[in-house]
Amino acid sequence: MNPWFSKRAALAALGVLLMSCTVTHADEGMWLFNNPPLKLLKDRHNFTPTKDWLDHVQQSSVRFNSGGSGSFVSEDGLVMTNHHVGADALQKISTKDKNYLRDGFLAKNRSEEVKCVDLELNVLTSIDDVTDKVNAAVKSGASAEEAFKARRAVMAEIEKAALAGKDPKKSRADVVTLYQGGQYHLYQFQRYTDIRLVFAPEQQIAFFGGDPDNFEYPRYDLDCCFFRVYEDDKPVKLKHWLRWSKSGAKDNELVFVSGHPGRTSRLNTVAELEYMRDKQFPNLMQILNRLEVMLKVYSDRSEENARRAKDELFGIQNSRKARDGGLAGLLDPGLMGRKKTAEQKLREAVAKDPKLKDALPAWDNIAKAQEEIGKVAQRYNLLERGFGFNSTLFSTARTLVRAAEERTKPDGERLREFRSSNEEPLKLQLFSDEPIHDDLEIVKLGDSLTFLCGQLGSTDPLVQKVLAGKSPRQRAAELITGSKLKDVETRKKLYDGGAKAVEASQDPFIALAKLVDQEARDVRKVVETQSELKQQAYGQLAKAKFAVEGTSTYPDATFTLRLAYGTVKGFEENGQKVPFETTYSGLFERSDDHKNQPPFDLPERWVKLRPQLEKDKAFMNTPFNFVCTADIIGGNSGSPVINKEAEVVGLIFDGNIQSLVLDFIYTDDQARAVSVHSAGIIEALRKVYNAGALADELIGKK
Amino acid sequence: MNPWFSKRAALAALGVLLMSCTVTHADEGMWLFNNPPLKLLKDRHNFTPTKDWLDHVQQSSVRFNSGGSGSFVSEDGLVMTNHHVGADALQKISTKDKNYLRDGFLAKNRSEEVKCVDLELNVLTSIDDVTDKVNAAVKSGASAEEAFKARRAVMAEIEKAALAGKDPKKSRADVVTLYQGGQYHLYQFQRYTDIRLVFAPEQQIAFFGGDPDNFEYPRYDLDCCFFRVYEDDKPVKLKHWLRWSKSGAKDNELVFVSGHPGRTSRLNTVAELEYMRDKQFPNLMQILNRLEVMLKVYSDRSEENARRAKDELFGIQNSRKARDGGLAGLLDPGLMGRKKTAEQKLREAVAKDPKLKDALPAWDNIAKAQEEIGKVAQRYNLLERGFGFNSTLFSTARTLVRAAEERTKPDGERLREFRSSNEEPLKLQLFSDEPIHDDLEIVKLGDSLTFLCGQLGSTDPLVQKVLAGKSPRQRAAELITGSKLKDVETRKKLYDGGAKAVEASQDPFIALAKLVDQEARDVRKVVETQSELKQQAYGQLAKAKFAVEGTSTYPDATFTLRLAYGTVKGFEENGQKVPFETTYSGLFERSDDHKNQPPFDLPERWVKLRPQLEKDKAFMNTPFNFVCTADIIGGNSGSPVINKEAEVVGLIFDGNIQSLVLDFIYTDDQARAVSVHSAGIIEALRKVYNAGALADELIGKK
Repeated sequence: MNPWFSKRAALAALGVLLMSCTVTHADEGMWLFNNPPLKLLKDRHNFTPTKDWLDHVQQSSVRFNSGGSGSFVSEDGLVMTNHHVGADALQKISTKDKNYLRDGFLAKNRSEEVKCVDLELNVLTSIDDVTDKVNAAVKSGASAEEAFKARRAVMAEIEKAALAGKDPKKSRADVVTLYQGGQYHLYQFQRYTDIRLVFAPEQQIAFFGGDPDNFEYPRYDLDCCFFRVYEDDKPVKLKHWLRWSKSGAKDNELVFVSGHPGRTSRLNTVAELEYMRDKQFPNLMQILNRLEVMLKVYSDRSEENARRAKDELFGIQNSRKARDGGLAGLLDPGLMGRKKTAEQKLREAVAKDPKLKDALPAWDNIAKAQEEIGKVAQRYNLLERGFGFNSTLFSTARTLVRAAEERTKPDGERLREFRSSNEEPLKLQLFSDEPIHDDLEIVKLGDSLTFLCGQLGSTDPLVQKVLAGKSPRQRAAELITGSKLKDVETRKKLYDGGAKAVEASQDPFIALAKLVDQEARDVRKVVETQSELKQQAYGQLAKAKFAVEGTSTYPDATFTLRLAYGTVKGFEENGQKVPFETTYSGLFERSDDHKNQPPFDLPERWVKLRPQLEKDKAFMNTPFNFVCTADIIGGNSGSPVINKEAEVVGLIFDGNIQSLVLDFIYTDDQARAVSVHSAGIIEALRKVYNAGALADELIGKK
Repeated sequence: MNPWFSKRAALAALGVLLMSCTVTHADEGMWLFNNPPLKLLKDRHNFTPTKDWLDHVQQSSVRFNSGGSGSFVSEDGLVMTNHHVGADALQKISTKDKNYLRDGFLAKNRSEEVKCVDLELNVLTSIDDVTDKVNAAVKSGASAEEAFKARRAVMAEIEKAALAGKDPKKSRADVVTLYQGGQYHLYQFQRYTDIRLVFAPEQQIAFFGGDPDNFEYPRYDLDCCFFRVYEDDKPVKLKHWLRWSKSGAKDNELVFVSGHPGRTSRLNTVAELEYMRDKQFPNLMQILNRLEVMLKVYSDRSEENARRAKDELFGIQNSRKARDGGLAGLLDPGLMGRKKTAEQKLREAVAKDPKLKDALPAWDNIAKAQEEIGKVAQRYNLLERGFGFNSTLFSTARTLVRAAEERTKPDGERLREFRSSNEEPLKLQLFSDEPIHDDLEIVKLGDSLTFLCGQLGSTDPLVQKVLAGKSPRQRAAELITGSKLKDVETRKKLYDGGAKAVEASQDPFIALAKLVDQEARDVRKVVETQSELKQQAYGQLAKAKFAVEGTSTYPDATFTLRLAYGTVKGFEENGQKVPFETTYSGLFERSDDHKNQPPFDLPERWVKLRPQLEKDKAFMNTPFNFVCTADIIGGNSGSPVINKEAEVVGLIFDGNIQSLVLDFIYTDDQARAVSVHSAGIIEALRKVYNAGALADELIGKK
């Protein structure tokens, strides 16, 4: 479960806005770079991006595989993203004595830049439509299981062919599924794995206002972080990177966002949305609430505990707030009513057109497949997705056990994550030096085994085998303290040794992973087979939609690169105008309003500099955060906001509470994307962090 | 859901201790005052309390009907309890400008004592065994439903008769069910409702260490609070109150605890315990986690929000920690194994003895009844227990709607809470001036309606009627802002106006309560009928147990007055000795260990006085908290700890983590009751709070 993928999953607190929003859907869309909204941009904004413009922006965009987006912002491989996207990396390099996540960091020169653990960045270099090839592999009349296998095989084959002759450490190829199965594209990436930390502010200013201000606006967050990409121990030299705008975002300006929205459900049928509303989201909320309380209790015991759990707790709270909003959206009869009306309209159009009659049973087929998935969802979540075994060591053990088996199979028959083209990314995670804390692992595993008992009942045969006559907490302690998998060398030996080594292993986690594996695979197979049926049906619906509404449309978000566009502008809330931008003077006022108490407390550095900064009118009036109407969602965190000249004017880091419905439906009535202003970043670097060299690199000053 | 009832619901974090604990069960038992453990006390401690001693202690013991225990500690009606038992009262008299709960209070003289809202104290004046009378009313061969009705009727009749000729404002009579239905006793009480606050310390020192230190030991909490009981605007003059010990608790001393343990499940059959383990506790944890996150999110928005939700949030967190421990106990195969062995032994004894053969089907009957209850448990919890309608105004509306109907029926046919003998306590709650905050009510109700949707599905017919076409949050806002039930006069008019007034009411909450009422009553009826079957079966088991094990035993806790006894002594943990007492110097060390950061921060008063206090060796070495082996559980909070002379040597406020199994089984291996030391209270009153007059009143100095 990656929080950034689900960051802005859905809804406005009170869904009223949905009923009042217009139907023009002005700046809607998370567009594919190979199908940009040229007509809309021309008609609405009188702007036509050239092929070079699009190519330049695409090649300057960076994907964080830990979840999130970024961009190249200097010739020398400098990458800009959010502090909260970098948080995973900051957490992993922190120790009891050096807390990068909380205290921030500035490398005074390149030799001080700190190498990150298991961080992988990808840059999209080419896109090819392989829909016909993928579909051709599925024989007409094939069963769902055969179809799934055939599709998996042809995708693995296309990916393998794409990597042929390339260095797998530096390349990546994925066949991505778009329009819920309507299209398949081959995405090829440049892969970077030597990533070093250049600058991060204190978490207090990056996430000023904490959970209460998360998904809110006005906002005052310096949510930025800079890394540098190295190859062969030297900063990469780039052809494409984004220049810095002199002025930054201006009111009413047309802007673009290039990034990786994680997941939306806008094309989902009403039946699927109802399943999400009545089953999936309530279950997820239960899990998130439980994890939040568990991590909060652990964190409150000591400062060091709080440090260890910080990034994970933040991620859970962030997901909880987003999902809470998403669920409220699904529960809003106004939203669901619009979805029903649109679906009904398409159904009628399909029914009228004999050419589209194949699509008629699609809705029922999706509902039926979803029902089958629902029957195994509980065990699938617990056993395969790991909610019953919340432990890094369990995941490690499972990967080792499965790798031993899968790697002996032909590429196309393997579980998809073990396809040969994915070996390098998989190994990067599997052999990560990420710190593992026994006490936290015991708490997490004990808690999730307890949850497993409550979900399946203690007398469930698998549960009994898992617990082996112990209580969940006893069993968790025994497993964690008895395992050698914390040692990366041990993992390497088991991976390289294959089935024989895994078979001979006495590690208790290896034994546990084996014990659970068959049943986990069984439920996964049900989900995969039913998902294939859904994909076939969605493929038919996509064709019908193209026929009825035209092909100038965009697919649901899938953590692939997208281009959104929008206008910098404020909004109205409770009859009050909310201006498009905030300033540093607003930051100080907000802190004062809350007596500088957490989470509205300024970092010490800011408190000390405040008298001096307050005398500096230019600083105080510098734009800090701003909003625009671009269509974004979780995963877009860290995306650059650029102007027509493809210059950086801001840095996406959040959406307001009204934007949480964007998971299901676009609206620009009040929904806004929230960014750090480019000028605010430069001012803070120069006047607060004494980071003039970094500021100079950004603005291209030699 | 009252947290104090469930405070120490169960288990040791790692249940290992259960397997190593001895079987003597030395100081076990929550004894009835009319069946005290005379032989055990004589044999083990060579002490025999006289009838006068028992009567004196009983009449000096006080029950807080908000949940918790207390005692009279001066001739002038002074009552001692815990800060956390008084918290409900402190919260209700607090405002934005005067925060009694957080900041504490000292009345400099009696005219400054602050009158509490809806606080009722009871003193047990007599106990009569009415088992035969209650059982005689149930005709042999009666159906479960008839039996339940007959039992309810005879209990109401006995209570009404007991109150005849007495002032209902000053008297109370309850027939209490003991041994899960093995015995019925009539408890008569003196009732006090003019209760005034005398002294409370700051919550920071009362609950020093917060959630992390809750249920832990060593401990450093001044968890005390003093009230005074008034009648006719004057302090009551008492015959029975507890004198103060000169020395306080000493190592290895025999001590007694007189208080109101809320609920234990030690006599439950294994089938019932398994139901608790696999269904009830997991469901409760889900609800508690959800409430904790909801209240924490609300609290974090502002200082004023935090104040409004403080007592409720504390109660939820306290229950969560206790239930988490209880569930871990139930999941410990060691504990369950002992329970199974004991049950098997009794089953075999019953099978062998022809006189006991009636009891043979009891276990199966209990399991069967529990299964039936399980089938409606979800709807019962949501609709009848109110987890789907978490709002003070909803509870108020339901009471008004039901009162209108129930009060027209003969006493014995009413829902039990509407029996005429309970009218005064019911009105005290119904017409309470307790502050109601719209914003918090909306958040709570919106959250619980969302939970209702997730549990029953949005398409459930009742859910659809409840939501009336709105989203849960819209509906909550509409209900709360549209209701007039915040106004106590409106409630009085509806109560006094009866069915006609309720029928004519346009209040949206009255309409909602009516809408839900029939289905709530239906599921309640199922639960009541099946519970009657369980009670009959437990009655048979109780008889069998008496026959096999003798009558010198104690019933499970039921929030009725009990006498426990034990020895003041430390324990071993992880091979380390934990001494029986802590001191004030330990408090300062603990705070320093955590850099005086919350929740280990001292109140300002303590920080200021610290240099002076540290010079005072007598103060620094004064015992602060201590532990003993007495058998207590949630509800015992606020109980006096007394010596053989019935003098106060301490004040119960918690149990250690190892005591959380006491819900299911007694152990004195590591489980300990945690108390504030009597000497620590006096020292703090004199040297920190400048409350010499109160200290003098306690030690009886004129």
